[in-house]
Amino acid sequence: MSRRDMKRSLETLPLIYPIPIVLVGAWVDGRANFATIGDCAIMGLTPALVVISLGDMCHTLRGVLEADAFSINLPSTGLLAEADACGIASGAMVDKSEWFTVSRGERTKVPCIEECPVNLECRVVDRVDYAHRRIFVAEVVLTHVEASLLTDEDPLQLAAMIDFDPIIYGLDNRYYRIGGSIGTGYAEGRELAAMTRRT
Amino acid sequence: MSRRDMKRSLETLPLIYPIPIVLVGAWVDGRANFATIGDCAIMGLTPALVVISLGDMCHTLRGVLEADAFSINLPSTGLLAEADACGIASGAMVDKSEWFTVSRGERTKVPCIEECPVNLECRVVDRVDYAHRRIFVAEVVLTHVEASLLTDEDPLQLAAMIDFDPIIYGLDNRYYRIGGSIGTGYAEGRELAAMTRRT
Repeated sequence: MSRRDMKRSLETLPLIYPIPIVLVGAWVDGRANFATIGDCAIMGLTPALVVISLGDMCHTLRGVLEADAFSINLPSTGLLAEADACGIASGAMVDKSEWFTVSRGERTKVPCIEECPVNLECRVVDRVDYAHRRIFVAEVVLTHVEASLLTDEDPLQLAAMIDFDPIIYGLDNRYYRIGGSIGTGYAEGRELAAMTRRT
Repeated sequence: MSRRDMKRSLETLPLIYPIPIVLVGAWVDGRANFATIGDCAIMGLTPALVVISLGDMCHTLRGVLEADAFSINLPSTGLLAEADACGIASGAMVDKSEWFTVSRGERTKVPCIEECPVNLECRVVDRVDYAHRRIFVAEVVLTHVEASLLTDEDPLQLAAMIDFDPIIYGLDNRYYRIGGSIGTGYAEGRELAAMTRRT
């Protein structure tokens, strides 16, 4: 029996995992609002590109469209209740800024959550509209990281991801924490890559 | 001292974590080629949207542009060496199809890796070009999942993400496995959301 025989079709589920949990921030009617999403990723390192997707009913969307900018705030597991609540409640009904200490981004003025160990100030560079989705490609214009998660080396180095203690989500509708390290990038496959090149 | 005092600026690092590790597949000169990337995410559930980003020197890119389609293959940790190798070696130098059992997608003919527990057949719906990056927004047209990772319920349900045993990557250049579950979506913040709504 081939492996395909052991697979089943699920029609069109966009089954990618793990899903990062981030809080996207923007000002709406003068109030800081935050939407919890998993539709977020790095799109490149140089230039520093990210992407987010918001539904067209999302309250935060209006602020992003007005400013052409937004913040991405990365919560640690200690903020699980707040992060989940920002995905349940709409800013049209609830003042989510009460749940956090909010500051203004230095370069973009977007609202940043001080309790999150990482805040990215992002400026929109392009947008794709598809069905009810608004997909924003943005450049990161300033990255803020809690000092305790950087080493003292020059240039500054990031602590291990496990120390950031991220909230991870899956399409099983469960939150997870990160597990142990299992290897190093561009090292685990070096032998295989070299071996094949020779044949 | 405010929390901001405890933060430092890292200029423009697109620091989002955790990063999913996926293998993007396309046919190039009649040969199945696979690129390992972390620049990949869900952009919406209905319609089933995903996004990937490829550098303009990526060998797989040519095949994606020609077919307007690609596969996303999700490896488990047992495929760490192969996944890492697909990010080290270029398909211009190495025949990566030797490392896997390759099948053709039922709806798109894109090359799928049988050893990966999940294969998504994706059709491009839009593209953003920015600097040397080609960012593809695509609709998932068929999802294949290993039968052992589905429950027998009707409709089929996904097993817990921990059973998929995904490879996770971080900007600390380390690979990680998923850790334990810490909660349920739309439950952990229910009390906080309701409490605030009342005030």
